[in-house]
Amino acid sequence: MASKFYAIVIGAGTGTGTAAARRFAQSYPVVLMARSPASYQDAVDSINAAGGQAVGVRADAADESSLQAAFARVRDELLPGHRLAAAVYNVGANFKRAPFLESTVADFDGSIAGNARGAFLFAQQTIPLLLESVDANPPHPPTLIITGATASMRGAANCSGFAAGMAARRALGQSLAREFGPRGVHVAHAVIDGVIDIPRTKGYNVNEGAEDGKLDPDAIAESYWHLHTQHRSAFTQELDLRPYVEKF
Amino acid sequence: MASKFYAIVIGAGTGTGTAAARRFAQSYPVVLMARSPASYQDAVDSINAAGGQAVGVRADAADESSLQAAFARVRDELLPGHRLAAAVYNVGANFKRAPFLESTVADFDGSIAGNARGAFLFAQQTIPLLLESVDANPPHPPTLIITGATASMRGAANCSGFAAGMAARRALGQSLAREFGPRGVHVAHAVIDGVIDIPRTKGYNVNEGAEDGKLDPDAIAESYWHLHTQHRSAFTQELDLRPYVEKF
Amino acid sequence: MASKFYAIVIGAGTGTGTAAARRFAQSYPVVLMARSPASYQDAVDSINAAGGQAVGVRADAADESSLQAAFARVRDELLPGHRLAAAVYNVGANFKRAPFLESTVADFDGSIAGNARGAFLFAQQTIPLLLESVDANPPHPPTLIITGATASMRGAANCSGFAAGMAARRALGQSLAREFGPRGVHVAHAVIDGVIDIPRTKGYNVNEGAEDGKLDPDAIAESYWHLHTQHRSAFTQELDLRPYVEKF
Amino acid sequence: MASKFYAIVIGAGTGTGTAAARRFAQSYPVVLMARSPASYQDAVDSINAAGGQAVGVRADAADESSLQAAFARVRDELLPGHRLAAAVYNVGANFKRAPFLESTVADFDGSIAGNARGAFLFAQQTIPLLLESVDANPPHPPTLIITGATASMRGAANCSGFAAGMAARRALGQSLAREFGPRGVHVAHAVIDGVIDIPRTKGYNVNEGAEDGKLDPDAIAESYWHLHTQHRSAFTQELDLRPYVEKF
Repeated sequence: MASKFYAIVIGAGTGTGTAAARRFAQSYPVVLMARSPASYQDAVDSINAAGGQAVGVRADAADESSLQAAFARVRDELLPGHRLAAAVYNVGANFKRAPFLESTVADFDGSIAGNARGAFLFAQQTIPLLLESVDANPPHPPTLIITGATASMRGAANCSGFAAGMAARRALGQSLAREFGPRGVHVAHAVIDGVIDIPRTKGYNVNEGAEDGKLDPDAIAESYWHLHTQHRSAFTQELDLRPYVEKF
Repeated sequence: MASKFYAIVIGAGTGTGTAAARRFAQSYPVVLMARSPASYQDAVDSINAAGGQAVGVRADAADESSLQAAFARVRDELLPGHRLAAAVYNVGANFKRAPFLESTVADFDGSIAGNARGAFLFAQQTIPLLLESVDANPPHPPTLIITGATASMRGAANCSGFAAGMAARRALGQSLAREFGPRGVHVAHAVIDGVIDIPRTKGYNVNEGAEDGKLDPDAIAESYWHLHTQHRSAFTQELDLRPYVEKF
Repeated sequence: MASKFYAIVIGAGTGTGTAAARRFAQSYPVVLMARSPASYQDAVDSINAAGGQAVGVRADAADESSLQAAFARVRDELLPGHRLAAAVYNVGANFKRAPFLESTVADFDGSIAGNARGAFLFAQQTIPLLLESVDANPPHPPTLIITGATASMRGAANCSGFAAGMAARRALGQSLAREFGPRGVHVAHAVIDGVIDIPRTKGYNVNEGAEDGKLDPDAIAESYWHLHTQHRSAFTQELDLRPYVEKF
Repeated sequence: MASKFYAIVIGAGTGTGTAAARRFAQSYPVVLMARSPASYQDAVDSINAAGGQAVGVRADAADESSLQAAFARVRDELLPGHRLAAAVYNVGANFKRAPFLESTVADFDGSIAGNARGAFLFAQQTIPLLLESVDANPPHPPTLIITGATASMRGAANCSGFAAGMAARRALGQSLAREFGPRGVHVAHAVIDGVIDIPRTKGYNVNEGAEDGKLDPDAIAESYWHLHTQHRSAFTQELDLRPYVEKF
């Protein structure tokens, strides 16, 4: 793979993160970031085993210095001379249903930290790199993709902290799209509206057990790749993704 | 092309319609429908010349009997034994800016007819065919794509009739997605938010004349193709498409 | 009642229409319009009996000449010399749930006619009158209020025609608000999200039979009156109204 | 004023906060909270001078212990035996336009703190009190009103931190409305879309200097009062408020 461009996925240890890394690895070296190497190591190994090029970097999205150190490592050690083609913010934090009066402000803070503050910090790291790539003859417009959820669109009972964090993250994405679109960086937000089919959700009975009733992470990743490859005359800022049987 | 599946584009005489037909013709025989053969003949010829398979059929989307006759021709004469893989509703009607008090109810009726009533009638023809295809081992989930516009999302001064028609069309698409998604048919709505780059708009000065400041119809068509190929566990109901420099 | 201003409610034969007429009759003579005198006669009588001033006029909102004749009667016979302070479009048409493939285009047309075309025609009659009132020292900014519904906001399975009509009506309201707000006419849209408590819905078991689980028409009317009395520096274009126990 | 109910406004030192306090003081004793007594002292004095009953309490909405202490003072010292009828969250924080790459995470944190975290904490204090009032025969349904802004609805270039905080706040309000509406507490969100007419904005040239081109705080307060007095069968969760001449 001769490309001097690469992709980064943060929150790489989840179904969507891993699948996105695999998909982008078909065209770019990929960096998988997560707080714990246990989250990304298998994915890194399997991408490399399959002929792709992947590295894992420990990073806490909500911690500015951790993130700065991670990006410095990518730049100086892991992929020197490479340019950023695509970045995916896929950190999910503090999703849980709890009555508001049994929630604490720590729950709220935790949701904001991972769901919104981390996205802000990740964008502060990646937007300058993506801007540099605009003029470097990239294969596709440099892209920042932000993973959203049902709660990004509307609050729900027993979901106040999570919804607040996800709504903030979506608003951030809209702001960035409006600010950096005209400079050639594609910022997109994907509303994942349903349960993702991963080991942890194996036992969940969703959509009455319908076949394909949970989102296949590879299917999500395929739409992320499509977003990345869109021509700059026709950028998508937001799309929803949900199983055919999902109520909405 | 041995596929027994085919695609239909109505409103085929426009930039988006022609481009969608060309894109889907890479995988399917395509039927181009429009009120006048002059609208589709060049596109039909060029698809056939390029090795694809295309036929044109005269049809007025807003006229039930015209549409019924057109679909009967496709079924009985043009593509007997074929099944419908994808249908694109791309009719655009009565886009014009006019002060409300200088508009007539005929303007309103014209917008409704082409923008919403036609979509209703087209869906009544295509949904049964798409449902039949669900169980016929189609290459991708059978798909109805509806082209929308900025005015689909919000009304605007001097735009009351057009906005009403486009909003109705969008609501129709949402209704169909919720009703037929669970039965395996993918109904998607694409909000085209900007000026499309076609001969008629050549002189328009949009986005300060920025390069790629108008939507390339082929770029739109590429996203339509992506919608069609989405896995049923991750359908998009709505996406927006706009030039990177477009204000929104 | 010395006011030379008056109010009109069309679709006056329903719970909301009647309640709005009663509420506005506390300050203005009111005209109640409906297709059949049976719809408004009781309300007209009871307003007059209570010391208000009310007249009923037969009018079909979706029929241009019927509407023109009705407004001519108001102007020439019923309330000569009066000016229009407020108009309420409250016609509801063709609400029914039916599978799309069992619906006909006549269902679609019927929804458009009463839900959107009628609103267009009513606005064409009332906007010029409201504009004239702007400079006539009205007690409150001249106001057009449009009644909406859940389906105004989103399509739903088995609800395609109704949703299309209501979405068109909402878009029309947005367009008019943007066009005539700056000229001093307040155009507002109220999303009634729930079942209204009227004789016809007495037996409906909604919200598990909770007390006040259906909208009280007088409560709706109170918010309509508030909309009418808003200062022009702080107009509401849209509000929702729903029972406290309603899921949304 | 014999009512044993009272109202609280936090962020009381602004045009909207002061006006809301004045409006609610027509029916209730009011507590004005702000970080600095200088913010509320004039308003407190003028309400008392006009025959109302007002007290000021120093509180930092984003600081849990500060807020707890403030509410303890109200309960134990200032208005013992009273019940909460209405609470208004009107804190505005960190509104400024700045390019994203010149913003710091401290800007983001500041917006979240005042715009969203404070609302979470304020709701944690007020929701239990409002729930207690539900069964205490209150004059109107106990109400929490949250002030929003244009940025609550959509992100904008150079506005990422502020938009994130305001979007989070709106999602919080939606969550609370869905959770506590069925228990009788009315949670409403008001989108203030425009410049408010206060001393600080005197020199702003908005809407081409049109008369009433900025929102009159008293007009906002009048709609807040209307929200509070809505019957529980017809609660508004969200309304917008903007000058008649405002573009939207």
